[in-house]
Amino acid sequence: MKHLLCAAAGLIFALPAFADEGMWTFDNFPAAAVKAKYGVKVDQAWLDHVRAASVRLVGGCSASVVSASGLVLTNHHCVRACVQQLSTSATDYIKNGFSAAKREDEKLCPGMQAEILYGVSDVSASVAAASAGKSGPDFLRTRDAATAKIEKEGCAGREDKFRCQVITLYQGGQFKLYTYRKYSDVRLVFAPEIAIAMFGGDPDNFNFPRYDLDFGLLRLYDNGKPAATPKHLHWSATNPKAGEPMFVAGNPGSTARLHTTEQLETLRDLVLPDTLLMLSELRGRLIRFGEESPENARIANVMLLGIENSYKGNRGRYEALLDPAMMKAKRAVDAELRAKVAANPALAAATGDPWSEIARIEKDRAVIELPYLWLEERAGYRSDLFAFARVLVRAAEEREKPNENRLLEYSDARLPLIGKRLLDARPVYPELERLALEFWLSKLREGLAADAPGTKIFLGKESPESLAAKLIQSKLGDAAFRKMLWDGGKAAVMASDDPMIRFVLATDPTSRAIRKEHEDRITAPSDRAMEQLAKARFAVYGTSIYPDATFSLRLSYGAVEGWNQKGTPVSPFTYFPGLYERATGKPPFDLPDRWTGAEDKLGKKTVFNFSTTNDIIGGNSGSPVIDAKGDILGAAFDGNIESLGGDYWYDPTVNRCVVVTTAAIAEALKKIYHQDRLVKELAGK
Amino acid sequence: MKHLLCAAAGLIFALPAFADEGMWTFDNFPAAAVKAKYGVKVDQAWLDHVRAASVRLVGGCSASVVSASGLVLTNHHCVRACVQQLSTSATDYIKNGFSAAKREDEKLCPGMQAEILYGVSDVSASVAAASAGKSGPDFLRTRDAATAKIEKEGCAGREDKFRCQVITLYQGGQFKLYTYRKYSDVRLVFAPEIAIAMFGGDPDNFNFPRYDLDFGLLRLYDNGKPAATPKHLHWSATNPKAGEPMFVAGNPGSTARLHTTEQLETLRDLVLPDTLLMLSELRGRLIRFGEESPENARIANVMLLGIENSYKGNRGRYEALLDPAMMKAKRAVDAELRAKVAANPALAAATGDPWSEIARIEKDRAVIELPYLWLEERAGYRSDLFAFARVLVRAAEEREKPNENRLLEYSDARLPLIGKRLLDARPVYPELERLALEFWLSKLREGLAADAPGTKIFLGKESPESLAAKLIQSKLGDAAFRKMLWDGGKAAVMASDDPMIRFVLATDPTSRAIRKEHEDRITAPSDRAMEQLAKARFAVYGTSIYPDATFSLRLSYGAVEGWNQKGTPVSPFTYFPGLYERATGKPPFDLPDRWTGAEDKLGKKTVFNFSTTNDIIGGNSGSPVIDAKGDILGAAFDGNIESLGGDYWYDPTVNRCVVVTTAAIAEALKKIYHQDRLVKELAGK
Repeated sequence: MKHLLCAAAGLIFALPAFADEGMWTFDNFPAAAVKAKYGVKVDQAWLDHVRAASVRLVGGCSASVVSASGLVLTNHHCVRACVQQLSTSATDYIKNGFSAAKREDEKLCPGMQAEILYGVSDVSASVAAASAGKSGPDFLRTRDAATAKIEKEGCAGREDKFRCQVITLYQGGQFKLYTYRKYSDVRLVFAPEIAIAMFGGDPDNFNFPRYDLDFGLLRLYDNGKPAATPKHLHWSATNPKAGEPMFVAGNPGSTARLHTTEQLETLRDLVLPDTLLMLSELRGRLIRFGEESPENARIANVMLLGIENSYKGNRGRYEALLDPAMMKAKRAVDAELRAKVAANPALAAATGDPWSEIARIEKDRAVIELPYLWLEERAGYRSDLFAFARVLVRAAEEREKPNENRLLEYSDARLPLIGKRLLDARPVYPELERLALEFWLSKLREGLAADAPGTKIFLGKESPESLAAKLIQSKLGDAAFRKMLWDGGKAAVMASDDPMIRFVLATDPTSRAIRKEHEDRITAPSDRAMEQLAKARFAVYGTSIYPDATFSLRLSYGAVEGWNQKGTPVSPFTYFPGLYERATGKPPFDLPDRWTGAEDKLGKKTVFNFSTTNDIIGGNSGSPVIDAKGDILGAAFDGNIESLGGDYWYDPTVNRCVVVTTAAIAEALKKIYHQDRLVKELAGK
Repeated sequence: MKHLLCAAAGLIFALPAFADEGMWTFDNFPAAAVKAKYGVKVDQAWLDHVRAASVRLVGGCSASVVSASGLVLTNHHCVRACVQQLSTSATDYIKNGFSAAKREDEKLCPGMQAEILYGVSDVSASVAAASAGKSGPDFLRTRDAATAKIEKEGCAGREDKFRCQVITLYQGGQFKLYTYRKYSDVRLVFAPEIAIAMFGGDPDNFNFPRYDLDFGLLRLYDNGKPAATPKHLHWSATNPKAGEPMFVAGNPGSTARLHTTEQLETLRDLVLPDTLLMLSELRGRLIRFGEESPENARIANVMLLGIENSYKGNRGRYEALLDPAMMKAKRAVDAELRAKVAANPALAAATGDPWSEIARIEKDRAVIELPYLWLEERAGYRSDLFAFARVLVRAAEEREKPNENRLLEYSDARLPLIGKRLLDARPVYPELERLALEFWLSKLREGLAADAPGTKIFLGKESPESLAAKLIQSKLGDAAFRKMLWDGGKAAVMASDDPMIRFVLATDPTSRAIRKEHEDRITAPSDRAMEQLAKARFAVYGTSIYPDATFSLRLSYGAVEGWNQKGTPVSPFTYFPGLYERATGKPPFDLPDRWTGAEDKLGKKTVFNFSTTNDIIGGNSGSPVIDAKGDILGAAFDGNIESLGGDYWYDPTVNRCVVVTTAAIAEALKKIYHQDRLVKELAGK
C-alpha cells in the first residue's frame, strides 16, 4: 500500500507504521493491512453488506439505510435545505425541528435523490479508445461523447429505477461505470432543532470537543410506499471505545492529493483567496439581511450557514497550502515520480512531459480563471431564479442535439436528475434573490473590470441593483411555470417574455464562449496531462494507491482516537453534561426549549460526539461509522480544524473525523423527542 | 542616486536611464539628477517655496495653500469625513455638495488639524544614545522615552501654534525632529457632490482613464480669523503637457521598500489576506445596511467608501506580492547587501545578523499577530464609541505617569491632538455603532477561537449581538459628556457607569498585555534589527537612497506620461466630453443634477484628469502637483492599479500617479458652481 505523501513523509511527520490514510474503492480495499493493524477481517460479505446500505444523496452528502423500511440516517446539515424548503414563516422546522407523527406525515424533500451503488464495471478501455491519440478540445469532446454513450447504454430500459454514471478515478487513470439504484422519492422523517443539531454554530464548526446532534432521518419511497430495504445496517447504541477500529463508508466529494505542486499553487494564490473574499462579502450581506427581521433571518439562515461552512473550510485549506514544509514534501513527491519515469526510457517516451505541460497550463489559468468563474461557473451565484432559467435555456438547446454532442450534464443519462431538481416545487424568496443577484453582478463587474466586454454584455447600462430589481420579477419561482417551459422545449423558451429567461437568452452565448475557451485552454489539456501522469504513476507504483475523491463510494478505516493539539491532549469523547456546561443561553450557544433543564433525563455516560482517525472529506457528511461487526455506531458530520489540509494530504497525527453517536441519537429520540415509532423501527422491532 | 530595486532591477524590467523613483526628503533631494534628466533647476528657493505651502492633514492626507488667506486645496476624499460630519439627514452635503456663500459660512471640520513643516533638525544622535546597547523591551522603552522628551522640549513654550514630532527615516537609520506650524481650526469651504468627486465609484477607483473632480477646499484659521499665508502656491489653470516635468510635494503614508523578503512574506501570507477577508465581510454588512433606507445609506456611505478603497488597495498589494519575479528581485537585493556586509569584516562585526533575526521574528509574528490585532490594534474596529472610551480610559491612566514613561501616543507632545480629536463635536450613529461592534466582536471570537481566554474576557457569556446592544447605550456620543470625563481625569473615568467606559475598563488590561507582548516579541527586536540593517545600508550605499514613507513631507519628481497596459497604450489625459460619454445615469456612473446637460458650458479641451510618473503612495492624496516654475497644476488623488505594488517597489514602466487639474477645478467652480468668491481668491485677486 502506497501512501500519497510517503515518498517525502519523513520530511514532515513521523508516520506510524501504517497510517489510516486512504479513501479506498470497495474493489481495491487494503483488507490485509487492516487485518494486520487492527485484527479485523474485512471480507467480501462484510463489504457487500456495507455497500448495500451505503447511500449517496445527490446534494453532496452520504447516508445509510438503518431499517428494513427504507429509513435513512444522515446529518442534519444534509437535510437542512429540505427542512428549510418545507418550512414557512408559520412552521419554521429549522428552528423548531420536524417530526412526522406517522408515515403519512413524512414529506417529500424537493430535488433530493438517494442512490445506492449496485454494480461496477471497468470502462477504462472504451473511454481510452475514444480519446486515444486526441489532444486539446478533441480529447475532451471524444471523451465526453464516450461517457454520454456508455451511461445511456448502461441503464437502457431500466432508467426509472437506475442511474448509470461514469466515475473518473486516479485523475483519469481509470474510468468505471457505476450503476446506482436510485430513489427519487425521498421524504423527511425527523430533524432536530438547529440549535442542538448545530450547537456552537460557526464558532464550533470544525472544532472539537463538540456537542452536536447533527442528524436527520429520511425515508426512501418506491412507488409511493416505503422502500423495502432488507439490506441495512444494524443500529448499535453501544458507546464507541478508545482505540476501537472504525470504518466510514461514504462519498468523499473531492480531493487534490494527486495534483502537482503547480496546481496546488494556483489554488493557494488564485482560486482559494478569490473564493474566500467572495464568500466573506456575501456572508456580510447575509448576516445583515438576517438582522433586518425574523422572517429575513429565517429565509437567509440556511444559505448563511452554507456560506460560513464553505468559508471556514476554504480558509483552512488555504492556510494548509501556506505550509512550506508540506509544499516541499509535495515537490519531493513530484520529483520522485519524475525521476523514476526518467530512469525508464520506454516509460519516459510514453509519458512525455505532463509536468511541464501542467505548469504551462496553470500560468494560462491565471489569465482566464476569474472571467470564467464570474461569467460561467459562478453565474447567478446562489440565485435560484437564474439557475432555473439557465437549465431551461440550455436544456432547450441541448435536447435538440444528438445525445453525444451535448454539454455532458444535459446528456440523456443525466437529464432526469436535472429535470427533477428543476421541477420539484420549493419556495423562492424574492428578496433573497435580489441580494444574490446584486452581489453576483457587482462581483462580476469587479472581477472583470467595469469596461470589460463581458461586463457590458451582462450589465449594459444597468447597475447591479437596477438589473436585479428587474430580474426578480421573473415568474420562475412557480414550479408549474417551469414545467410549462420545460415541456414546451425550445419554442416555449424562445417565446417567453419572462425577464430572467430573456436575460439568460441574451447572455448565455457569452457564458458558453468562455466555458468553451476554458475547456480548450485549461480543462482539456489539463485532463490529458493528468491522464498521462496517472498512467506513469500506475507504471511506477502499481494500483496499490487510492484514487482522489470523486463523490463516489469509498471506504476508509481507522480507530477512535483523540490527538495532541499544540501540546494539549484532546480526548476523543464528549458527553451530555459537557453540552450543558458549554451552553450560555446566547446564540449559537443556546439550547432549544426541549433541551433546557433536561440534563437529568440524559445518560451522563452516553458518548455524544467522538473523533476517529478515518480519512474523510466533504461529501462524507452523513456517512455511517461502522464497527468491526458491520454495525453502525454513528454518523460522521465533521472533521477537526487540522483535517482541512485533507484535500491535499493526510496527516495521521492530527487529522480527525468527528462523529455523532447512534447512542446519543437514540437517547435524544427517546428522552427528549419521545419518538417511540422511530425508536422501535431503529431497534428492528 | 541608488534606486531601491536597482541591484536586481535587471531581472524584472528595463529601467530607463533614470527612473522617476523616490519619495525624497527636502534636505536630500536629487536636484542634480533632475537637472540632468528634465533640465529643471530645483534650488533651495524653489524647495523653500514649495515646502512652506505644503500641508499635512492629520487624518492621513496632504494638501497645499493656494491663497494668501489660508485657502487650502486637497481631495474631496480627504474632506469627506468632515463633509459627512457636518451633514444631517436634512442637509446631505455628501450628496448635494457644500459651498460656503461667505467666509462666515465656512464650517469647522471636527478633529481636523493642518500642519506645515517649519523646521528640521537631526536628533539621530540623541535617540541612538538613549537606546545604545539596549535590546528587546529596553530598546523600545528607552527610544520612546527619548522621543517623548525630545518632542516635549522641542516645542516647549510654543505648543499652542507648533507641534514637534520625531520622524523615523530609513527604518531607524535616522531620526529627525520635525517642527510643524499647526492649525487646529480648519474649516470647510467647498466640496462638490460625491457623484462627480468620485464619478465611477469603486469600479473606477485605481483605474484610468478617469473623470473625477476629486477636490475640496479648506481654510486655515488663526485666532478665529483666516490665516495669513503669504507663502502659497500660484494657481495655474494651464493644461499640463505630455512629457512636462512635474513635482509632487506631500506626505506619503507608509511604504515597505526597505523590508526584507521575510517581512514581505508575512504581509503576503498573513497580514494582507486576513485584512482583505475582514474588509470583505464588513463591506458586505455595510452594503446591505445602506440598502435598508436612504438614511442608512447616508450614514454608512463614507465608511463604506473607505472600506472599499482599503480593500481594493490591499488586494492590489497582495497580488503584487504574489509576483515571483519581484520577490526574486527582492531576495537578490537582500543577498547583495548581505554579501557586501560579509565582505567587510569590520562592518560584518558591527552589523551582526539582522537578517536571521528578522526571519526568526517573522515566524514568531505568525503566532501572535491575530490575537494582537483583534484585542489591541483593531479593537472596537470602526466604533467611535469604543475609540472614545479607550482614549478616555488610557489617557486617564497615562496622564498620571511621568511624560517619558507613558505609552508614546499619550506623551505631552501628542496629547493635544488626541484631545482635539476626542472632544470636537461630531455625530455618532448608534445603528452604525451596533454594526461595527457586532462585527468586531464576532471577528474577535473567530480570530481567537471561541474558547480563547481573550474571547472570554471580551464576550463573557454574551453574544456579539447582545453585547453590542448594551454598549451602544453609551453616552459618549455627547461631546460634553466626553469633555466632562476628559477633564475629570482618572477619578471621573473610574466612577463612570457608562457601559462603554465600564467595558473598556474591564478589557483594557488584556489589550495592554497583548500589546506589551507584541512590542516585546515583535516590535522591539524588529525595530532593532531594522536599525542595524539601516546602518549597514548606509555604510554600503551611503545616503543616496531615499527613506521609506513615514507620513512626513517628501518631494517626488516625474513627468506627464501615460503607459502601456498589457499592450494597449493609455493616454495621460482625459477631458470633459469623456465624462459625458461614460455616464450611464445609474450609480456610480450617474452625474449630479448640476452637471447633467452642462456639457456645452465646459471647455472641451480642458484636461480633466492626467497621469504622471511621480512616485507616490497613500497619504499623498491631495498633494499639490507642481510644474517647474513652482506653480500648482493639480492635486494628486489616486494611483493606477499597476501602482499598488508601490508599497514594495517602483516600476517605472507602469506606476502612475493620477491627478485632477486645477484647470478643471477652476472651470467647474466658474461654470457649474458659480463660485465667484473662490474663483477670484484663487486668481489672487
